[in-house]
Order: sequence, then C-alpha cells, then structure tokens
Amino acid sequence: MSRPKGERVVYLNGRYVPESQAMVPFRDRGFTRGDAVYDATRTFAHRIFRNKEHIDRLYRSLSYLQIDPGLTPVEMMQATVEVAARNTPLLAPDADYWIIQRVSRGLDAPDKAIWGQDGPTVIIECQPLPFRERAPLFRDGIKVFIPSVRRTPPECLSPRAKTQNYLNLILGDLEVRDRDPAAWPILLDMDGNLTEGRGANIFIVRDGVLLTPHERFVLPGISRQTVIEIAETLDLEFKEADIDLFDAYNADEAFITSTSFCVCPIQSINNVAVKSAVIPGPITSKIVEGYRQVVQHDFYGQYLSHLAVR
Amino acid sequence: MSRPKGERVVYLNGRYVPESQAMVPFRDRGFTRGDAVYDATRTFAHRIFRNKEHIDRLYRSLSYLQIDPGLTPVEMMQATVEVAARNTPLLAPDADYWIIQRVSRGLDAPDKAIWGQDGPTVIIECQPLPFRERAPLFRDGIKVFIPSVRRTPPECLSPRAKTQNYLNLILGDLEVRDRDPAAWPILLDMDGNLTEGRGANIFIVRDGVLLTPHERFVLPGISRQTVIEIAETLDLEFKEADIDLFDAYNADEAFITSTSFCVCPIQSINNVAVKSAVIPGPITSKIVEGYRQVVQHDFYGQYLSHLAVR
Amino acid sequence: MSRPKGERVVYLNGRYVPESQAMVPFRDRGFTRGDAVYDATRTFAHRIFRNKEHIDRLYRSLSYLQIDPGLTPVEMMQATVEVAARNTPLLAPDADYWIIQRVSRGLDAPDKAIWGQDGPTVIIECQPLPFRERAPLFRDGIKVFIPSVRRTPPECLSPRAKTQNYLNLILGDLEVRDRDPAAWPILLDMDGNLTEGRGANIFIVRDGVLLTPHERFVLPGISRQTVIEIAETLDLEFKEADIDLFDAYNADEAFITSTSFCVCPIQSINNVAVKSAVIPGPITSKIVEGYRQVVQHDFYGQYLSHLAVR
Amino acid sequence: MSRPKGERVVYLNGRYVPESQAMVPFRDRGFTRGDAVYDATRTFAHRIFRNKEHIDRLYRSLSYLQIDPGLTPVEMMQATVEVAARNTPLLAPDADYWIIQRVSRGLDAPDKAIWGQDGPTVIIECQPLPFRERAPLFRDGIKVFIPSVRRTPPECLSPRAKTQNYLNLILGDLEVRDRDPAAWPILLDMDGNLTEGRGANIFIVRDGVLLTPHERFVLPGISRQTVIEIAETLDLEFKEADIDLFDAYNADEAFITSTSFCVCPIQSINNVAVKSAVIPGPITSKIVEGYRQVVQHDFYGQYLSHLAVR
Amino acid sequence: MSRPKGERVVYLNGRYVPESQAMVPFRDRGFTRGDAVYDATRTFAHRIFRNKEHIDRLYRSLSYLQIDPGLTPVEMMQATVEVAARNTPLLAPDADYWIIQRVSRGLDAPDKAIWGQDGPTVIIECQPLPFRERAPLFRDGIKVFIPSVRRTPPECLSPRAKTQNYLNLILGDLEVRDRDPAAWPILLDMDGNLTEGRGANIFIVRDGVLLTPHERFVLPGISRQTVIEIAETLDLEFKEADIDLFDAYNADEAFITSTSFCVCPIQSINNVAVKSAVIPGPITSKIVEGYRQVVQHDFYGQYLSHLAVR
Amino acid sequence: MSRPKGERVVYLNGRYVPESQAMVPFRDRGFTRGDAVYDATRTFAHRIFRNKEHIDRLYRSLSYLQIDPGLTPVEMMQATVEVAARNTPLLAPDADYWIIQRVSRGLDAPDKAIWGQDGPTVIIECQPLPFRERAPLFRDGIKVFIPSVRRTPPECLSPRAKTQNYLNLILGDLEVRDRDPAAWPILLDMDGNLTEGRGANIFIVRDGVLLTPHERFVLPGISRQTVIEIAETLDLEFKEADIDLFDAYNADEAFITSTSFCVCPIQSINNVAVKSAVIPGPITSKIVEGYRQVVQHDFYGQYLSHLAVR
Repeated sequence: MSRPKGERVVYLNGRYVPESQAMVPFRDRGFTRGDAVYDATRTFAHRIFRNKEHIDRLYRSLSYLQIDPGLTPVEMMQATVEVAARNTPLLAPDADYWIIQRVSRGLDAPDKAIWGQDGPTVIIECQPLPFRERAPLFRDGIKVFIPSVRRTPPECLSPRAKTQNYLNLILGDLEVRDRDPAAWPILLDMDGNLTEGRGANIFIVRDGVLLTPHERFVLPGISRQTVIEIAETLDLEFKEADIDLFDAYNADEAFITSTSFCVCPIQSINNVAVKSAVIPGPITSKIVEGYRQVVQHDFYGQYLSHLAVR
Repeated sequence: MSRPKGERVVYLNGRYVPESQAMVPFRDRGFTRGDAVYDATRTFAHRIFRNKEHIDRLYRSLSYLQIDPGLTPVEMMQATVEVAARNTPLLAPDADYWIIQRVSRGLDAPDKAIWGQDGPTVIIECQPLPFRERAPLFRDGIKVFIPSVRRTPPECLSPRAKTQNYLNLILGDLEVRDRDPAAWPILLDMDGNLTEGRGANIFIVRDGVLLTPHERFVLPGISRQTVIEIAETLDLEFKEADIDLFDAYNADEAFITSTSFCVCPIQSINNVAVKSAVIPGPITSKIVEGYRQVVQHDFYGQYLSHLAVR
Repeated sequence: MSRPKGERVVYLNGRYVPESQAMVPFRDRGFTRGDAVYDATRTFAHRIFRNKEHIDRLYRSLSYLQIDPGLTPVEMMQATVEVAARNTPLLAPDADYWIIQRVSRGLDAPDKAIWGQDGPTVIIECQPLPFRERAPLFRDGIKVFIPSVRRTPPECLSPRAKTQNYLNLILGDLEVRDRDPAAWPILLDMDGNLTEGRGANIFIVRDGVLLTPHERFVLPGISRQTVIEIAETLDLEFKEADIDLFDAYNADEAFITSTSFCVCPIQSINNVAVKSAVIPGPITSKIVEGYRQVVQHDFYGQYLSHLAVR
Repeated sequence: MSRPKGERVVYLNGRYVPESQAMVPFRDRGFTRGDAVYDATRTFAHRIFRNKEHIDRLYRSLSYLQIDPGLTPVEMMQATVEVAARNTPLLAPDADYWIIQRVSRGLDAPDKAIWGQDGPTVIIECQPLPFRERAPLFRDGIKVFIPSVRRTPPECLSPRAKTQNYLNLILGDLEVRDRDPAAWPILLDMDGNLTEGRGANIFIVRDGVLLTPHERFVLPGISRQTVIEIAETLDLEFKEADIDLFDAYNADEAFITSTSFCVCPIQSINNVAVKSAVIPGPITSKIVEGYRQVVQHDFYGQYLSHLAVR
Repeated sequence: MSRPKGERVVYLNGRYVPESQAMVPFRDRGFTRGDAVYDATRTFAHRIFRNKEHIDRLYRSLSYLQIDPGLTPVEMMQATVEVAARNTPLLAPDADYWIIQRVSRGLDAPDKAIWGQDGPTVIIECQPLPFRERAPLFRDGIKVFIPSVRRTPPECLSPRAKTQNYLNLILGDLEVRDRDPAAWPILLDMDGNLTEGRGANIFIVRDGVLLTPHERFVLPGISRQTVIEIAETLDLEFKEADIDLFDAYNADEAFITSTSFCVCPIQSINNVAVKSAVIPGPITSKIVEGYRQVVQHDFYGQYLSHLAVR
Repeated sequence: MSRPKGERVVYLNGRYVPESQAMVPFRDRGFTRGDAVYDATRTFAHRIFRNKEHIDRLYRSLSYLQIDPGLTPVEMMQATVEVAARNTPLLAPDADYWIIQRVSRGLDAPDKAIWGQDGPTVIIECQPLPFRERAPLFRDGIKVFIPSVRRTPPECLSPRAKTQNYLNLILGDLEVRDRDPAAWPILLDMDGNLTEGRGANIFIVRDGVLLTPHERFVLPGISRQTVIEIAETLDLEFKEADIDLFDAYNADEAFITSTSFCVCPIQSINNVAVKSAVIPGPITSKIVEGYRQVVQHDFYGQYLSHLAVR
C-alpha cells in the first residue's frame, strides 16, 4: 500500500484545515482535564458505516457529561460526511479510514479572550486503519491478558460514555503491552468480571451460547451491537452475562469486536488457549461471515491481505 | 487590580512562546486521552513556593504512569523558575501566579511525522490567581456539598497521581455547581468517607483534633502537608482518618487546603453549619496564622483585599 | 375542598378510637426501636385499591422480621375495610384516603404490666391524600435529585420489607429537601444504581423500553407491579435492570410510582431534563391512561384539579 | 430485692407524668419512622454516671440527623437530674437505674393540629437495671455468637448515632437469641470485622494488647471510652483495630462493655472459648477493678449478688 | 443393611489397589496445598448416573486450574466404569455408591525422585452413600442455617470449580454443626445472597416460581441441572436469581440438591419454617417425582427405608 | 553441594519413618479438602530458628480452624527438634533445612476403621532449601508481578491462618510464572492493596519509611516480625499500611521476606524498577545486615555462594 500524496484535512470548529495545522490551545479543557468525549466509525471500501448510530452514541456521551456541542446531530453527521468526502481521495484502494468526532468543553472563562474562542471544541478527523500491524492478529488470533488494574466503576465514571479520560485503560495497557506488544488487555470489573479493553468489546462462546459482558460496565460498541443482531439472524443463543475467569478459561471460542477490528478472533486468555482447535472457531466464523454481509465488505480478507510478505 | 500590559509566555517543549500561540496537536495523547500529568505551585508576593516539593510530586505522578518527561527534575525546576521570571513583570503588585507544569505522553507513532514532534509534550505556564472571585469565600467560609458520584478508587486510578483525567471530579462539580456556583464539592470514597474535591483537600476539627482523609484516597497536597507540619509546631493533635458524614455534621471547624487557597474556612457541609460560631474558628485561625508565617505572606488578607466594593 | 366535620377513627389493638386518642406507650418497641412494619393502600373515589395485595405484602414484612400480628390476613383485611367504612363519611367528594396498617412487636416483658398490654401493637388508620401540595408535580413533573447517602443494602436490612426504620431514607430526604422542598430523592445502591426514594419507585424509559430497578433493592410497590402489568397489556418491553446515572441522564422519560402518586412524571434528574419535550412523555401518558383504567378513576385529573387558583 | 411502691414518673415534653400515662401519638415520627435518637446513662448506688458525656453524645446524634430538641444541653442535663431525683425513692437499696433521654422529630405538619403538639417529642425516663437476669453472665461469661446479618455501613446510616432504628441489630438478635436466649450477638461489618451488638461494645485481649473495633463502625460507648482511659492508667497497650474471626478465635480474653453492663466477661465466641482458663481473665479483672474505682461502686459484686439462690 | 464382605478397590494412577492401601505421598500437592480437583457421581440401583456430565465438569475444573490429568475424558470415563464394576459386588442390594474422581497436580520437582512418581495423581474411588444418617432429613426436612462466614468470591477462586480447597465451606460447617449436627449450612455471597453449602445447591419456591442462586457463585451441580430440566418439563417457571434472606424467610418451599441427596426438602432456614404446611411441599413433591423418573429409581423411598426402627 | 547419602526421616503420627514411606490415606481430609494447617521454620548453619514462635503460630492456625492436634505445643516443639536432629547428618555443610509441621483433621468417621487411624494427622518433615535456584534472585533482585486474581478476603478465610488451601495463591502463581518462571506474584486485596505471594511477605521503602501490608490480609510471617524488630533497633520508621500500585511504582526499595528467603531484594514491580540504583538498596542492606546478626549467619552470602559457575 503506497500512501497517496497530499495532506488530510480536519474539521476544527467549523473550518476545514490541513491536519498538521489542527492545533488546540493547551488550556483547552480537553487537554488540561480530558474533559471531552469522542466517537469513531470507520469506512468499508471508502463508505462510512452506521454514521447515525455513532453520532447518536456521541450525543449520549455528551448528555452524560452535560457538554453542549453547539451542533445538532444532523449537522454533526453532515460534517462527518464532508470530512470523509474530502479525505477519501487520499486513500489507497485497499485502505480505509477511522472517522472520528471529538468534542471538548472548550476553554475556561479566563482563557476565552486569549484564544478568541468561546464554546466547545469540535473536531472531526480521519485516520487510516492499521491493517498491516494487525494482520497477524487475524491470522493467529489475539492474545488477551488480564491486568491487575480494575475497570473504573460506573458510580465514578460510566464506561458507557466514550470519553477522553483513558488513564484507567492505559494502566491496563501498560501492564499487558510490557509483556507482549501485540497482546490486548481486558480489564475486570470490581467484582472480577470481564469488561473491555482499550476500545474493544469481548465475546466468548461456551456450549454454543454467545456471551458478552453487561452493557453497564463497557462501552456499548456499535460493532458489539452488530454482532448481537447477527447472532439473532443466525438463531444463535446470546446473553449479556457476568463472565469471569472460569468462563474465560473454559471458552470454546472468543473474539474481540471494535469499530476497526469488526470481529477478530482470540487465541488465548492469560495464555490459556480457547478450546477450539481452529482460529477462528466455527461460531466465530459464522459471525465473521454475517459481519461481512452486513458491511458488504470482506474486512477479514482485507486485514489478511496486508500480511507482510517475508 | 489593573492588568499589566503584554502577553505571558509559556514553556513549550523547550521554547518560550506567547501564551496565545501555545497550541498542541489535537492528536496529542494529552488531548485525545488525557494521558498526561501536571503539577501546580503558586507565588507569594511573586516568590515561588516549594518548587522542589511540587516537582518531586510531579515525578511521582510520572512514575506511576510510566511517562518519561525527557527532563531531569532539576531541569524542570530551572525551567519553572525561568517561566516565573519571564512572566512576573506582568503581575500587578497585589497579584500572584499559579505556576503549572504539564507533561503528556505526546503523539502516537503515526502522528509523529505529521507534527514533526517526538517524545512527550512538556508545558510550563502561569495563570493569575482568582482573588476577586474567591474573596467572599474567605470572608464567609466555603459551602461544601457532597455529590452522589464517588471518587475513583485507587485500584482503578490512584487519586495520588495528579493527572489530567478529571471527569470523575467534574461529575461531582456538575452536581454541586448546579446548586450553587460558589459551592465546593467533596466526593466520598467507595466506603463513604470524605476524600477531596477538584484540586482541594479537606480538614476537619473535632474535639481539638485535626483530621484529614487518608493519603491513599486523595492527592497528597503540598498545602495539606504544610498544614500537617504547622499542626505539629502548634502541638495540635493530628490524624489521617476515615471521616464520614457523622464527623462532618459534627465538625467544630473545617477548612479546605490547596495550592491557591492555602487555607480557606468551610462554612457548612451539606448545609449543616460547622459548630464554631465564628468563621474561621479558633483552630483554623491558628493554622492560617502558621501558614502566613511559613509562606511569609498574608495570603488571607490578600484574598480579603479583593472583596468587591459595593 | 372544605374538610368535613368530625374526627377520624383508628383501629388500635381491636378497638376503634378517635384519632387524637390513639396513643402508644412510649416504651412500645415501635417507638423505642422502630421495631414495626406497615403497609398502605389508598382509595380511589372512596374505594379501597388492592387491599389483599397490600395485606399480603404486610405479612411478608412480618415474616421477615418474625413479628406475629395476632390476626390472620383475612381478619386484617376485614378490619381495614371497617376502618375505611367508618372514615369515608368524613371525606370530601373529591378527596381520598391512604389506609395504613401498622404492626409493632409491642412492649418488652418488663413493660407489659405497666401498660397492661401483651402482644403486638396493631393500628389501622386513614390519612387524607395531599392533593393540593402535589398537584404542581403532576403539571410540571417531579425534580429528582440523587443524595450522597446510599440505600441500606439487603444484607443489613432488606428494602423489600416495609418497615418503620426510615432513617436511611430520611438522610436522603434531608439532603434533597434542603435544596428544594418539592424535590424527590432517589438513593443509589452500594453499586451506584438507582433504587427508590421515600415510599416511591422509579421507572425510566430508554429507546422505547421501560426499566425499573431490581426488586432486591427496593420495596416492591403494588403500583410498581400495576405498571408492570399495564406495560404487558400495552406490549411495551419491560425489564428490571441496573440503572445508573448514565441511563438517568439519557432517559427519554421517567416517572415515579407509589400508592398515593400512582404515576407521576419526572421532569429532571439532578437537574438534567428528561429528553421528552412534553411532560408526561408519550409512553408515560400511555401508562397513566392504563392506570386510570385499572383503578377506574382519573387520578391524574384529580391531582390537577387541586392546582391552586392564583 | 422487693420492689418499692409507687409509680415512676417520666419527663414528657416539659411535664412530669406517671410512667403508665406517658404515651405518644401513634403518628409521632418516632413511631412511624423510628425518626428519633436516644441516649442512656445509669446510676451507681443511685448516683448518675457521666451525665454530661451522655448528653453530649445525644446532641451529636441530633446533629447528625438534624433534629432540634428545643432544649439546650444544660437544660437536658438538668431535666435528667430531676427525673432521676424524682424516681430514686422508688429504688431498692441494691438496685440502680438506666436513665434515658429520647428525642423524636415529633409530628408531621398535618398531625400537629390533631394532637396539639408542635416541635419534637422529648422524653426522659428511668428503667431498673436487670441485675437478676444478667447475674449468671458475670459468673460464667457471656456467650457471643456472630449472626449472618451485617451491620449497616456508615454510608447508609452511621452506627455512631444512637438512633431508634434498631431493625438491623434486631435481625442479628433474632438469629442468636433463637439459639440461646442468654447469648449476645456481635455483628460483623461489610468487611468481616467485629462491630457491636445491641447496645454493647466488644473488646478482646491478644498477647497483652487490648483491642476494640474502630469507632467508625460502632456506637462510641461512654463505657468503652472509660475502659480506654483505664487501660491508659494501667499502662496497658490499647488499639482500635480491624478485628476479625481469626482474632476472635485466638483471643486470650474478651469482654463486653455497655452503660448497664459496665464490663462483663465473654466466655466464648461462636462457641470457641477464650484462651484464658479463668473468667474473667487477668487483664479483664484489672479493667473491672479500674472500672470499680472510676464509678466508685462494686458493680460486679452488685450483679453477682443477684444470683438466684437455688 | 449388612455390609458385604471384601474390600473395595481404588484406581490409583493406573493401578487398582485395595482401598486401605491407597495412599499418597504426604508431599503430594493435593495434600500440602489442596492443589486438586474432584468430581462425584452416584449410582442408582448400582447404575452410574450421568457419568459423562460429571467427567465434563471435572475437565472444566481442570482447565480452570491448568492441571493436565494425563487421561482423556473418555479414558477417565472408562476407568470410572471399571471402578464401579469392580466394587459393585460389595454393595448390599438397597445400597448405592458415590463414585469419585480426584486429580491433584502431583509432586513438586524435588519430590518426584523420592516417590518415583511424575505427573498428576489420579484417583477413582467409591464410597457407600450414608442412607441411614440422612433418612430423617427426608422425613422431616433439613434445617438450614446461615453462618457468618461468606462464600469465597469468584475473583479469588471460582466456586464453579470443584476443588479440594474446602476450608471456606468448612468454616461455615463448624459454625452450623456446632449448633445442630444434622443441620446444613448455606453461605451467603459477598452481597448477602444465598450460595451453597458443602456440596449442595439450594432451591426455593416463591409464588409458584422456582429459584436458585446464579451459577457464578456456586458449583453448577448436575442434580441442580437435572432439576432445572425437570422444571421445564413440568412447565414450572424457573429463574436463576439473587436470593436473599427476605426471600428465604418468605419461601413457600425449599430444597437441597446434590449428587447424593438428589432432592431433599428443607424444613426451615435460620429456624424460620418454610410456609408449606407439609414437607415436602407440593412443588417439591413434583420435582421429586420428576427426579425419580429421570433416574429411574425411587431414591426418596430408598432414603426413607433406612429410617431406624425405634 | 553434593548431597549426603541416606534418606531423611519424617515424623508421622508419633513414628519416625523414611520420607519415601511417609504416605497418607487418600481420604485424609488434608488430601480431600485441604483441611489442614502447617508451619515452617528453617535452620541456619543447622540450628533451628525461632522454633517456639513458629509453633505458637501453628497453634493459632489450629485454633482458627478448630483442629485439635493431640499434642501440646511443647510436645510439638520437641518432636520438631528431634526431626531436625535425625536429619541434620544428611545436610551438606553449606546447606540448610526447612522444618515443617503439618496437621490435618485426619479421617472422616467412616474411614477411620479402614485405615485404623483416629484423630488428626501430624507430620513433621525437613526439606533442603533451594539455594541454587534462588541465588540469582539475591544477586539481581526478584521481579514481582501483580496477577489479576485477588487475595481471598478474611471474611471468607483468614490469610493469617497458614493453611493447606493454596489454590487462590496458585492462581496468582499460574498467571505470573507463565510470564517468567523466576518471577514472584504479589496479590492485591479486594481494595487493591498489596498483600502477599505464595509464602512471602513484601516490604517497600518510601522516603526512608519502611512499609508492609496490614497483618489482617497476610500471613504474619516470623521473618516479617523479625524485620519489624530490626527496624526498631535501627531507628527506622516503620508502618503497617495500605500499599497500592502508586506506592509500588514509587518505591525507593522493596524486598520480600520469608522463612527461607529471610530478606531478598526486589528488582521491579510490574517491570517498573525500584528507584534505588543498587540492589539491594541502602536500607534493605541495613535490614539484611541486621537479619544476619539476629540469625547469626550470613544467609545472604550463603545464597550467593550457590550462584552457578558458568
């Protein structure tokens, strides 16, 4: 994949600016306090996926934190389309984008005059998906490890809001990436149940039943929701559940879902291999196939096609 | 206080730039994830207070999050002195500064080339203290309210690290400021004990004993530490303790400490007045006097002098 | 509403006495320890609602606390009917009653001789419903606030027993009423989920689904049960759920249920307005209509009719 | 002990009335909600013990619940002395009294006119101490059992306030009294540490150190405080501590303190005998002796003198 | 029942040895650390019940603890059949066996040479069921008591693995057996919900609904599963639920299930009788009848037939 | 170190038997349920260390679990001395022993006849210390990792009893040893504080203060106690404390204590190096020196002397 020429543009408070010029005042509350939310969809063969669902989720995060973005959901959606449109020409044919909206509460009162900015900071941006780095995960399955740090409980900050406060998840990352840079952390909740990792939901399969952690403790991913809908069309029993390490170590199959990953099989949890002899296992394979149809794109093949030639 | 002319400068990754030009890439991890720590001291009559203690605490926060600032503590301290020196001419005689160091983990790998920046983002900056807004609090005492949201527990993210992840405290702020913009939230921990508010520690006095929440659940404030040392010189019994609402509603006196406030009396907690008939009460007054001596500055009179003439 | 003349009567240990003469020994365990349970139904247009269900619930509370009321459920029900019958003539046409049974464990052994009373204390009484005070809540919706105090967990004292130990809920009331006397507290459980307020259950509507806290953490209200049954007849999806502040701040609609309120819309939770532009919202309105049919009485209009003329 | 003739009097809202006529409206919030606090001291040889300390504690309970008793502490103390004086003639020479103040929040607004009472309900009363029933406990030691129900946590209702909400402790009583009517329950807190039973604190002795649960989880008994002071005069190491069943099953000695018991040895905890071969053990005996001196009365001999002659 | 002559044999690491010669090195990790799992089925009229389900569960316990038994499930099943076959001749006609597999991690490295044993320790054994001791429980119902000790939470050691670490349950046993040797403990979980006792699951019936604790906190018994399947065939509503003492004290019926008990009625919980006037109650009786059919054996009559003649 | 010839002997229920013949019935409750406790001291230059303290601790574990060993502490101590004496001739001059007492509850009633054994199983045994395997840890420091599994809380099973139920700690081991076989796990408690690993206590040094977890959550090691006493003689400030990962990542020094390790420095926790540039750091070195004097043996040099020659 050779990178097309030119620079991407970013929507920044109503203007479209070259990415390298998209800067924020260092006193923006998004920087000084992480006082911001975001959402991210992706493109499939250059088409935006479920833009509206992502925007709706963004506005739920905004409601939770009582941030007023100054745009209606429809305006936010239109600007998202525009950003995608302006940046698509820069994409290689086999590449795709994350498309991300970010809204911070903006500047505190004394800083507004300094930077001449009132109201929230709204950014819409694109980032190329890291196909090459992740391709081996689709071939071999992801190795998941459980760090010792626990996921922030909802009575302190709801994991359902997609905020720019990531230090809890980063602490989990630091424990796990230090062990294996390609591994993925899944944190436990305060009762010892699986929750989520940085930007990814987890599913396990046990005895033909598909299980995922309760929404209360995780970001309710759009891809997670897509998988739930696929399970229904496949007549596959599905349950939100408290899933602990006993379940994890006895999983027949397991996989990660996220906007960018879509569905990526898990090889092992704490180095205990899933029981399925093949990766992805039979049920995961059906989910992958269903996902391909929903997004009308062979995302799995796309990832594998980036496997480095040795 | 008329504001002196000219613009403050900010240390930004080794350069001194005018404040309004101190911008960070929107993809800085400090912005996208709050992946950053900071610390803040203040000046008293334009002299920096306990610079070394603050820098040491900054480096403990950095250790916890495994961020390498790229500067030694001594270099950080020297740059802090330089920033203060460059901005002091802009201060009115009766004004003073917060002086703040901020260190984010910087840019993710794919973004380094775009902004031509490798390594962490280091910022050192000044902000004038809000004497006028806070003057009434020194006259009347602060009204403290306890929000329903609980302080993030240490097994998720230690409150002892002064990070730029503030949403937990902001949720507390939103509950309390909505009721009274001048009120101050103090969050409870997961067991129902007082912890801290946004950037402030709390002390209460009961039966002649000075109590403050255990360090484990709060930022160990330098001002908090200063008060503990003053208590010792005053032969005042002091204990770190689990302090619940029974204690709070039976407090003889109570006060807030922070870098900027130093020591500010509390009028009431959840609208239950402290028992002392005068604000500040007798023991708080002794602490205030001790603090004046430590900082060699009448910070309390300075605040009161900004009371608006009606 | 002019109050009819005469004095209400109260059933007190087998006798019918004028209300003002219904006194209990100060050593009654109901007074010295709150060692008592109660239940309360109401009349609609002077007809008692679901007497049997309320009596059954009373006996479950009695079983939990191992208090023997000395009456069979049928006897208790008959005495309830009799109390209602004797007091109905005192009701204005547009007024209605709470009808309440109270059973305390009575006197400790040494006190029995002093007051010549053995066995439990059984009281059945009527109280006029406060239509006028509450009428504005039906017009504007209730403002709900979440206090910092948490609901007593079931392993200490089950909230499912309707006891005369109210201090936990009173602590919540004190926090919220101090802010706004017309506001209603809803306490969180030890995990940060909504439970109940003083004598009231809460429901929220999200994405067309009706949600209410799990029975384990609340009094299982008869009105709550009635609403659940109405939802079924309306083909409205209903779930008992862990409901946290993320749900609350994103609720499309919300309402309170209680014996006296029946169904009363909520305007806001922690001052975050429900998303519905009208109060009551469309689904709440359907529930209200269903409730009217179940009780064969326009309880909502009855409340609104008491709005004070200005 | 033959009971002297005549009837005791009770202070009831400013009047002194015969005990059997001391009644409260059944709608008193003390009855309908246990919305009341109390405190209790005792006499030693007809002299009141630490009246002021008990009244001070009563006012801390009142502050916590924001109940205004309408009397100053001095007035409350004087009325207590008066109640004791009026009732002392009824005491046998070898008998003594509990003297108890009770304050409820009184009547709700609609009920004030009915009973012609505004403001709180204040009661001061005497009860003869149950020497005969308890005498065997001083001879043999108390058998303590740990019920399954946990003590209400401070974030729901502080155990430090001596309230008339006793159902949590009554549930513990029911479990234990059912097994052995003379046994005493001690509940665990939410972390599995010993707290208190109905009106009694517990101490254990391990390796020469005296331990009692942290004040935060128990009523801070005046007798408990007296024992702590005695320990100091005896140069006995003392600590507030988290005490769990491992400590309990390895206690060398253990004892209960309460206003009426003063100090009563424990024989066993969950039927595991304390290690001391004699009851009371050597350190408990010293504490008992110290207590005798503080109260200037052989309370222990007084209890034993009531052992029934067989 | 006269005991047939001869000695039972035990499968021990591939050999069949007389029971009294089945010894393990004292340094076996099963002995020094309880580092072992087991499973147990029983015979009905000398036929093994659900051998495969039990072996599957054994292998889930092994997976959780990452112990490799060195045998495939089929081999384990065949050896089980062989052990049963060899020992059946020793059974009286009206007697039956537990058949138990035990797998420990074996010896630590330095001990392997000493005992000449590498790999795990695998034992398969039979034990006669205690019909006589338990017969009264089937006649009168079991008395269940709730000890103060809580069941180990899944984040420490999953109760779903059937391990040889029993001290948590033994602590519960000690509290309850001390009170009544025939009573059965059921421990609460960390939130105060019923879990299980030593080797037994509990069900309660309330308002016609069959409830049992969530699998997460208990061993998922094969008998428990059998009852769930029977409930389905009986069109009996069934739910896994959080069941607390309020439910327990209001249960219409309750029963224990275990491999050996199958289904045994409960008489009372903490001495509060179930509401059903007959033991077993009507729904329990239907379950018993269903169980008889599933196992094709009158297990209930078998137990009762061993009632001692007086 | 060449191993001396001959076989060690073991005390087994009153007899001294060759180690390889020290077997226990597989139905011993120590094997089937881990229903057993143990304790372990070691020799220094062939002398037993603090035999009495270890025996006393053993008896506290026995009390907690209500196991009667059938021997007095003095008899147990004497048998321990005898076992050491009999096995010392087999020790190389530079080698030393663990000396371990194990007491299980023995056989259940039906099994007593089979094995002809009544009462508990008492074993006293020796094991050579693993100097060679551990020598590198003394040179480089131990790498500590924190597993995701939490230490069993005291309300389920007190960590202060040294029992043969090790699965909770083994789960921690499995997570950490899989990463690095020479690493050592330290589990967190339910609140996220450091506790202990398999048979080892942890200390950290911060700002010149020595800290170790509260006794309540760990085995109170004799070596731990020895270090505490050494700290006192060194005038080193010492505190039992809640120690979380913030402390751990900011530790100046850290070390493990155990009977066999005595004091072994820690290199890093979760791969975050302690701040001391040398291993062991200055304070650890003083503790090591103090320990050498207490045990009158250069244990540290002994370990280092076994470093394999390459």
